[in-house]
Amino acid sequence: MDALHAGPDAISGDARLGVPDAETISSWRERARAAGADPDVLDRLDGGHTGAVAVVENGDGPTVALRADVDALPVTEATGDDHVPAREGFRSETEGYMHACGHDAHAAIGIGVLEAVARSEFSGTFKLCLQPAEEVVGGGRALAESGHLDDVDALYALHVGLDHPTGEVVAGVDSFLAVHHFDAVFSGASAHAGARPEDGRNAMQAMASAIQALYGLPRHSEGATRVNVGTANAGTATNVVPERAEIEGEVRGETTALKDAMVERAERALSGAAATHDCEVAVETVGEAPSAVSDVRLVDVVHGVAERDAGVRTATRTDALGGSEDATYLMRRVQERGGEACYAIVGTDHPGGHHTPTFDVDEETIDVGVRVLTESVLETLAARD
Amino acid sequence: MDALHAGPDAISGDARLGVPDAETISSWRERARAAGADPDVLDRLDGGHTGAVAVVENGDGPTVALRADVDALPVTEATGDDHVPAREGFRSETEGYMHACGHDAHAAIGIGVLEAVARSEFSGTFKLCLQPAEEVVGGGRALAESGHLDDVDALYALHVGLDHPTGEVVAGVDSFLAVHHFDAVFSGASAHAGARPEDGRNAMQAMASAIQALYGLPRHSEGATRVNVGTANAGTATNVVPERAEIEGEVRGETTALKDAMVERAERALSGAAATHDCEVAVETVGEAPSAVSDVRLVDVVHGVAERDAGVRTATRTDALGGSEDATYLMRRVQERGGEACYAIVGTDHPGGHHTPTFDVDEETIDVGVRVLTESVLETLAARD
Amino acid sequence: MDALHAGPDAISGDARLGVPDAETISSWRERARAAGADPDVLDRLDGGHTGAVAVVENGDGPTVALRADVDALPVTEATGDDHVPAREGFRSETEGYMHACGHDAHAAIGIGVLEAVARSEFSGTFKLCLQPAEEVVGGGRALAESGHLDDVDALYALHVGLDHPTGEVVAGVDSFLAVHHFDAVFSGASAHAGARPEDGRNAMQAMASAIQALYGLPRHSEGATRVNVGTANAGTATNVVPERAEIEGEVRGETTALKDAMVERAERALSGAAATHDCEVAVETVGEAPSAVSDVRLVDVVHGVAERDAGVRTATRTDALGGSEDATYLMRRVQERGGEACYAIVGTDHPGGHHTPTFDVDEETIDVGVRVLTESVLETLAARD
Amino acid sequence: MDALHAGPDAISGDARLGVPDAETISSWRERARAAGADPDVLDRLDGGHTGAVAVVENGDGPTVALRADVDALPVTEATGDDHVPAREGFRSETEGYMHACGHDAHAAIGIGVLEAVARSEFSGTFKLCLQPAEEVVGGGRALAESGHLDDVDALYALHVGLDHPTGEVVAGVDSFLAVHHFDAVFSGASAHAGARPEDGRNAMQAMASAIQALYGLPRHSEGATRVNVGTANAGTATNVVPERAEIEGEVRGETTALKDAMVERAERALSGAAATHDCEVAVETVGEAPSAVSDVRLVDVVHGVAERDAGVRTATRTDALGGSEDATYLMRRVQERGGEACYAIVGTDHPGGHHTPTFDVDEETIDVGVRVLTESVLETLAARD
Repeated sequence: MDALHAGPDAISGDARLGVPDAETISSWRERARAAGADPDVLDRLDGGHTGAVAVVENGDGPTVALRADVDALPVTEATGDDHVPAREGFRSETEGYMHACGHDAHAAIGIGVLEAVARSEFSGTFKLCLQPAEEVVGGGRALAESGHLDDVDALYALHVGLDHPTGEVVAGVDSFLAVHHFDAVFSGASAHAGARPEDGRNAMQAMASAIQALYGLPRHSEGATRVNVGTANAGTATNVVPERAEIEGEVRGETTALKDAMVERAERALSGAAATHDCEVAVETVGEAPSAVSDVRLVDVVHGVAERDAGVRTATRTDALGGSEDATYLMRRVQERGGEACYAIVGTDHPGGHHTPTFDVDEETIDVGVRVLTESVLETLAARD
Repeated sequence: MDALHAGPDAISGDARLGVPDAETISSWRERARAAGADPDVLDRLDGGHTGAVAVVENGDGPTVALRADVDALPVTEATGDDHVPAREGFRSETEGYMHACGHDAHAAIGIGVLEAVARSEFSGTFKLCLQPAEEVVGGGRALAESGHLDDVDALYALHVGLDHPTGEVVAGVDSFLAVHHFDAVFSGASAHAGARPEDGRNAMQAMASAIQALYGLPRHSEGATRVNVGTANAGTATNVVPERAEIEGEVRGETTALKDAMVERAERALSGAAATHDCEVAVETVGEAPSAVSDVRLVDVVHGVAERDAGVRTATRTDALGGSEDATYLMRRVQERGGEACYAIVGTDHPGGHHTPTFDVDEETIDVGVRVLTESVLETLAARD
Repeated sequence: MDALHAGPDAISGDARLGVPDAETISSWRERARAAGADPDVLDRLDGGHTGAVAVVENGDGPTVALRADVDALPVTEATGDDHVPAREGFRSETEGYMHACGHDAHAAIGIGVLEAVARSEFSGTFKLCLQPAEEVVGGGRALAESGHLDDVDALYALHVGLDHPTGEVVAGVDSFLAVHHFDAVFSGASAHAGARPEDGRNAMQAMASAIQALYGLPRHSEGATRVNVGTANAGTATNVVPERAEIEGEVRGETTALKDAMVERAERALSGAAATHDCEVAVETVGEAPSAVSDVRLVDVVHGVAERDAGVRTATRTDALGGSEDATYLMRRVQERGGEACYAIVGTDHPGGHHTPTFDVDEETIDVGVRVLTESVLETLAARD
Repeated sequence: MDALHAGPDAISGDARLGVPDAETISSWRERARAAGADPDVLDRLDGGHTGAVAVVENGDGPTVALRADVDALPVTEATGDDHVPAREGFRSETEGYMHACGHDAHAAIGIGVLEAVARSEFSGTFKLCLQPAEEVVGGGRALAESGHLDDVDALYALHVGLDHPTGEVVAGVDSFLAVHHFDAVFSGASAHAGARPEDGRNAMQAMASAIQALYGLPRHSEGATRVNVGTANAGTATNVVPERAEIEGEVRGETTALKDAMVERAERALSGAAATHDCEVAVETVGEAPSAVSDVRLVDVVHGVAERDAGVRTATRTDALGGSEDATYLMRRVQERGGEACYAIVGTDHPGGHHTPTFDVDEETIDVGVRVLTESVLETLAARD
């Protein structure tokens, strides 16, 4: 490896979204230290800048990058004997958190590709980008704005599973939903619910009105949209008119424009609902990702490699993602500068669904992923040599 | 009779609330003409000024007034044989409308008292005020501001029934709910619900949010409040996003201040609900009445008279009304100028409840009402002579 | 013409949806009589069976049908000088109603095709189906179940405009939204809103909850859905807790299955909202249409004809409709029995949008429509001879 | 002291409401141990039975009891210099919790009365009842059903402050609102909000509908009612359709019957809202207290004593409480068995309102309270001797 950028050198701190508070970051850092993490590395990741970019250079030639996301989820892993990690003793050691979306496999595949490419003969530059905070669509923008993508000619990103079984590879995702995560805090005035109910300005009612208005946002004739209020927290005690209520939610759109139209309507609904109940509302963006599309030339590369790979039984050219991904920030960064990008899916049998306690990855997937992506990277380097 | 003020001479046109549109007024006038009403009288009531004040003067002395309201209701009268007016042939001749609250009895009692007082010996002045539009709390203010009340020393008002049986008289109501009627029209933009739902600004949703917000207005520790959305009309066709929705509603309070507090919150709820769905709302007051209280001295008069009347089996001093009445405008007008006021209930057995198709009045009530109020008026004239 | 089926002979009375009440039908019939309609024809249409099927037979050969819908809309036609029908004196004579969707042009084109085909040489049978009640998706099913479609080998249907200009023809619509219209009546108990609010079971609140729940029905990952509450009517007076509230609404889906899923959820929302406020709800289906797709072979016919027609500047093969159409009942009836169907759009410049007061049709469209559909019908008859 | 009943001997465990879970109880017990509490006493309070009844007996005579509640509140005490406990160093040592309703003064007054009565000459029995969990209306019923009240001839209860200043005593509260606290958990099914929104059964929407319906419960003509949703917690992440939502709320009524009517309607609203969104709801009662009234004879005793006390500047006979209190369980228990009960207010200047971070008690109140209640207890013992 010729360079390892980590922490603020890898991701642009100001562009991060959804960053935890200092206390939370500090407690996770302690946990990492206690688990034996290298203190020098931890120092470089100070302030929760938990990303890295590794670079191998081999003379003149194109620059090809691979993005793998590395974050986990606040899901408590299953304990039953029918859950392989539990039965075989490699269940999450951090109670309440687990890799319920396979990003540990992404990290493993990324490292595998880095090693394989580094051992290979090629001309040009290869970069492995390890991105934090994909789940809260908070890290993609920060990596995109780090500068490391700005000279990239071809970017690959990958995801395992997504209901595709072991042995299937989808060469390029051609449709992501653009997404916008928000946090809204309603503020009113508390009052004793029995003695002086009229003194309250009821944030609970403002919140309920907002929830109903958000789910009632109109559908759009130009494509799919989504809306969800994912969390709600309000009030302090049964006998107090609530003065504070908070919701976290999201809207999505098949295009960035559709997402933007949903954001505009959602913000109007939030402020109107607050006003209806004489409350204020503060709305913050906590994560965001545009839509994107894989470039045909790179899709062709992955598809060709997959068709030749002995471990791949089904090589699919393209599919829609259904959900969102902040890899789209990286893809757009590269594409805007004249490069190309491709988001591939490496199938894996997963007993439980993504984001559920029984999610697990078929380890054969890691080998398939390393082979297919290494070959794709090398072929791209060669083609553009 | 020494003077008969009718139409604009009896009620202050500008102070009316809830006045029907010109076409409606004209159609009712035609109906009256066809039914044989005196054309000269109709001419005096032009523009829907359907009130009158009759005056009898007898030298020096106090001025005593009696207010009777005369309007009917948009209720279709029952047709079954168990409904006496249907069986005996005096059911409403105006289909869809009836005297479902006994105001025809009020008018009859008022005329009866006028005749009886005019035939009696007394010194002073007696005024009979026939008020329109009580049901929409639209006429009380107009009569109060006519000037006819301004020299009144004692005002009586009456109502029949209200769950008090024939033979009971309540001498003075001591508690009315202040009331405010409003009309709110939500305006958005229509759109084809299938082809372009995103183009709509949905007045139907604004209306639904407003209805929920209105019924959710907080209770008050200082006394009773009420809120109701009585009518709703919205939209044109199933496949069109509605651009217009209209509701009529009311709020009440045990005091005028409580009512005012409810009005303020209601208006905020209406405008917030409109904003939530990107609509506008136009809110209009269509009726209003303050709270009021009967004066003890007049209550004593009615109570004493009732106790001596052979047709009265139960003479109750005071009771709450439960509902609202725009007689309160008249009572307050008199009280603010140093006079006194009293609102009496003359019980009547009524088979169906007020405002229902089977409402009817026990005619014995009319005799009791004429006797008790005539005696009360004469005693008041004498006492102040 | 060899046969003219009209009234109950043309449409299956029991399968009709959204039929007006007897009084409304009778008043429209009188209007038709007064306007000079043939009394014999009116007799045949008794009970509002306002459809017809004309048949011309010419020996052996295939059976080809054309469907044209003939109903108008409750829209008041514009009166301004910039509205051609107003300026040139052919504005709707029936105030409050107009052909705001061009079905008068459909009828004219249908008659034109009938005349042209009848004058032509061909072997086989041609049927012109004039369908009522498309706007309320109430007539399609009735015509589909009449039996007249059961021997049809090829069915054409057409629509003018739909944002396609004069000179464009879309040979075949390949995507309709399936649709379901419902009527829901909430029943509670009325009460005096001031005196006894607790006695009410509030149908207004049930309705508002239902509206909120309906617009909040979740989006679907498998395709577009729609929901709309198009009309609402509730209550009688501001001071009465409403005992009755009625809404008319619709749900749609890109496929019939998606529509059915929406119907199921909508009905749950309606009954839950009623129960929340201690009310009952009666839900009725007032119109319905499945999704459908045009068959490629017939699309090819229309496309070929259009490309050769001098009046057609743009011949488009296929497009989505965006909205719904109960022609789909007829298309499916024919397709289920082994026949083929095709729904074509004949473009027309229309100043105002469909269903708006300034809608109008460019009359050149009628000539284009007659030519393209006559040629398509004859070519289909010949091809299958 | 002749007997000290503590823990399960003082309060009936099964009758408790709103008991924290075992882990919470255990952590508070550790905190008490660490703060130096007597381990033997802690053992007697095992399982969170944090009540006590102290008894002093002096031969034959009546039995008189005093109830003081001892629980604190989850409010973080103010830290500013204008808050006396902060400035003078006796701010709460348990961060996040404080005596924001003066129950620490109640305990001090109770102990003071116990000592004073024990030192006095009297015939009969005196009981001091220290009750936990008044704030969640969870402890009153448990103490009422302990048996310790069953032989009581006269029961006194007290509260400090409640907007009455130092130097005022209200001899007897004659109106409490009956109250009912509930917890409702909505259960649906989670789903990925982007990829499969249609798979969700959305507990967030059910919760919002329920909040709207609860605040919309109708007012009652027979007296005051209240409703509040005090807390809400729902969902796990922005991109997951929530499968679980929980609210805690309360309803109140001026009489127990009004409260019961509100409970019935609230439960219907909760289940209807759940059904609307295809969810289930589990509703649990977590606290409850009836209404009650102070007996005139005891009110006379306290009023007389207060009038003679040098520290009392204003002796008020009766007032309404405005809120609720589970002392009503104890009062009713005593009254149902032929005894009498009285709830007195000892005024205190309190800078911040009850349940707010700046609440504090004027310590002069403790002396006044001890004197007035000791004298009242002794006079009652003597009067019934």
